[in-house]
Amino acid sequence: MSDHAEPATRALARWVVQTQWQDVPEPARLAARRSWLNWWGCALGGAADDQVQRLVSALALAGFDGPAPVLGRGERLDLPSAALVHAFASNILDFDDTHWATAIHPAGPVASALLAWASAHPCSGAEALHAFVLGIEVECAVGLALSPAHYAKGWHITATCGVLGAAAAVGRLMRLSSSQMACAFGHAATQASGLVASLGSSAKSLNIAHAARNGLLAALYAQTGLSASAGVLEERFGFGDLMGEGRFVLASLPGPGSHWQVQDNRFKPYPCGFLLHPALLASDSIVQSHGLVSADAVGQIRLRVAPLAATRANRPDPADGMQAKLSLQHATAIMLLEGSAGVRSFTDVAVVRSQVLRDKVQVIADEGLSQQEAAVEVQLRQGTVLQARYKPQPGDEHPSLDDAGLALKFADLLAHGAPHCPADRLAQQIGATEQLSDLHALMDLTLP
Amino acid sequence: MSDHAEPATRALARWVVQTQWQDVPEPARLAARRSWLNWWGCALGGAADDQVQRLVSALALAGFDGPAPVLGRGERLDLPSAALVHAFASNILDFDDTHWATAIHPAGPVASALLAWASAHPCSGAEALHAFVLGIEVECAVGLALSPAHYAKGWHITATCGVLGAAAAVGRLMRLSSSQMACAFGHAATQASGLVASLGSSAKSLNIAHAARNGLLAALYAQTGLSASAGVLEERFGFGDLMGEGRFVLASLPGPGSHWQVQDNRFKPYPCGFLLHPALLASDSIVQSHGLVSADAVGQIRLRVAPLAATRANRPDPADGMQAKLSLQHATAIMLLEGSAGVRSFTDVAVVRSQVLRDKVQVIADEGLSQQEAAVEVQLRQGTVLQARYKPQPGDEHPSLDDAGLALKFADLLAHGAPHCPADRLAQQIGATEQLSDLHALMDLTLP
Repeated sequence: MSDHAEPATRALARWVVQTQWQDVPEPARLAARRSWLNWWGCALGGAADDQVQRLVSALALAGFDGPAPVLGRGERLDLPSAALVHAFASNILDFDDTHWATAIHPAGPVASALLAWASAHPCSGAEALHAFVLGIEVECAVGLALSPAHYAKGWHITATCGVLGAAAAVGRLMRLSSSQMACAFGHAATQASGLVASLGSSAKSLNIAHAARNGLLAALYAQTGLSASAGVLEERFGFGDLMGEGRFVLASLPGPGSHWQVQDNRFKPYPCGFLLHPALLASDSIVQSHGLVSADAVGQIRLRVAPLAATRANRPDPADGMQAKLSLQHATAIMLLEGSAGVRSFTDVAVVRSQVLRDKVQVIADEGLSQQEAAVEVQLRQGTVLQARYKPQPGDEHPSLDDAGLALKFADLLAHGAPHCPADRLAQQIGATEQLSDLHALMDLTLP
Repeated sequence: MSDHAEPATRALARWVVQTQWQDVPEPARLAARRSWLNWWGCALGGAADDQVQRLVSALALAGFDGPAPVLGRGERLDLPSAALVHAFASNILDFDDTHWATAIHPAGPVASALLAWASAHPCSGAEALHAFVLGIEVECAVGLALSPAHYAKGWHITATCGVLGAAAAVGRLMRLSSSQMACAFGHAATQASGLVASLGSSAKSLNIAHAARNGLLAALYAQTGLSASAGVLEERFGFGDLMGEGRFVLASLPGPGSHWQVQDNRFKPYPCGFLLHPALLASDSIVQSHGLVSADAVGQIRLRVAPLAATRANRPDPADGMQAKLSLQHATAIMLLEGSAGVRSFTDVAVVRSQVLRDKVQVIADEGLSQQEAAVEVQLRQGTVLQARYKPQPGDEHPSLDDAGLALKFADLLAHGAPHCPADRLAQQIGATEQLSDLHALMDLTLP
């Protein structure tokens, strides 16, 4: 519904301010509820991670303090720092959502910031979900306008676009005017940062964390009357000029009858690099047909994958859980041995468990397979060969969990990272978010 | 002293960690003392500004709280947020220092961050000045490696390079190891941000403020063991790759016998955009020769400037003090009317005072003038024409205050922004920084 004569920044700001919850069609709401549940699981599943502990320690050394509780943990911080920790925790397990057209993980910056804001302000569940959808659409619209050049060049797109999504969501909860929202985008875009060089280190999750914090601050700056460029997306020396390819053209923004980007959000079934997923799905088929595999019974395992997967993830001897997330051998072995691959399947301890079978896995690059395909052959000592091949349905290249899978994932994540939480009650409350008159009760359920 | 076989990030980190105060030659120390005094004046002169008040209000709304006092004001914040406010205040009057080869205002991010850190840790004056010099050299070395493409493209270079300078200074005070320092640079560079589109709004000073805060956090992240890229300046998808022109080559770093970048730092005589300075200097000549000009006596004023100045600063009707800093008409009028152009000459009230003469100023783009030149003709009603032309000495294109000028500027700034401070005693203490066993007494002098 964008007016093509209107500059992009103002059009986007007006859309965020004017779009009502009634304008969000049911398929988009349904997709939003799934993204919302998935985010809560990831954030709580990551809450106890050693890296999160380090981050919280660093913030304590810096003297941070305030009224906002950190979800799943309970320390109290200022609102922007709470947003920072939420987003860091929700990304640290590498289990978050993916909008494949942009490679953005949309929920992290948006949910993290809006919940930090909501912890100190009244906010109904419907308002929160509404702001959540708007933030996701803003991130993805901006990301689409910059794609594919932006991410290909080396910008960590979840961070650089996420800051705008976070500003949109918090700005909407603050009820900013249209011109204040454009100003919030100005403050957000001038803080946009995040290098792909950070991938593979803690700085990766920090990029996303900063996007959440900075987006919240951007909305607050605008609310307080600190000025910024109100044409930042399209103007010279602005966001599109520097971080895109010069021109910044926004596609039309969604309305009641149209397709929303949140509907394209996908939830990966396994907490590891997507290059491992076809191998995991093929191995899962073997377990489904033949039962768990015992290492003693196996002679050799031949895993065929696309050449790129073989180049990036042929890692026969991962040193720890982080490397296991990029090891085809580990992934195949752990699935065949245990019949599942959840958060506890990619830890330092899991690497020890997989070794007995991992050493028998041979990775073969096969030009005939796409990145979405894999073929496993398990040669048993007694002569039988178990075989399975994974090939996605055309048009649905990225495996995604269904509602039942999301529920199991949520329970698994809570058991891993926040065992003190009443998982069933929390899942029920999260599922009923639209009916909650205030989010505080829900957030309080996560605190120790 | 950089080893050309060593990657840039590690070479820079090692230089910061290994360079001793004794290695800093006297000319560099002298230049550092001037930059230090100038920064204190700017930070305290800006402390009471309405924009700073708004920023502090925004932070209060966000729930920030902590042990570090905001210099010149006294509110208490966490360390990174104190750094944020210091840097914002020190830039808000547009009166800070300039390293012309890069267009960096070096002191802001560095001093702001290190003093916030020092407010909660023991720190001698010599340690502080030492860290200050190292931070400035890091910013300028990185800025030189990216210049002129980086700023020309639209990156706000004080912010994008300042974050590395702030990380270096704070990291040095923390006594980070060489590999921790490289990691701090990784955390700093992945937070580097700031669009030139923000110039002309509060977001400009916020860019610099974020650099100070983020640099402090980067050092802290490294200290706490959060990992980052340790080759961020030179590696693929890193800082030089994305924000420079691909290759990142560091010039040799200074040592005991060499020239330091801090020696090239300059202190502008007027608190406004440098494009206005030639017009102010030419107008000042007229006042020196003919006395103050009365608006009633003037028919017309013709101001000739370089085309770039005419394009950027032909602003006949500035709406407020901020716009006045980029108005050739205002600058010329206020100097002719009042004979000086200090911090109180670029306020909202000053815009009202200049109007009577401002309307008579005609700005003319003259291809024959360089950016450092201007010519003023004041046509009096009775027929006389007063004329003056400003052209700098060859080799000294950028007018800079001498020690006496810096002392007057400091006093003027304190009277403007921090009248509660004992200005003389503070100036004396700042001048004697190297002899102070701890900075706390000095910082306490600024508190109400």
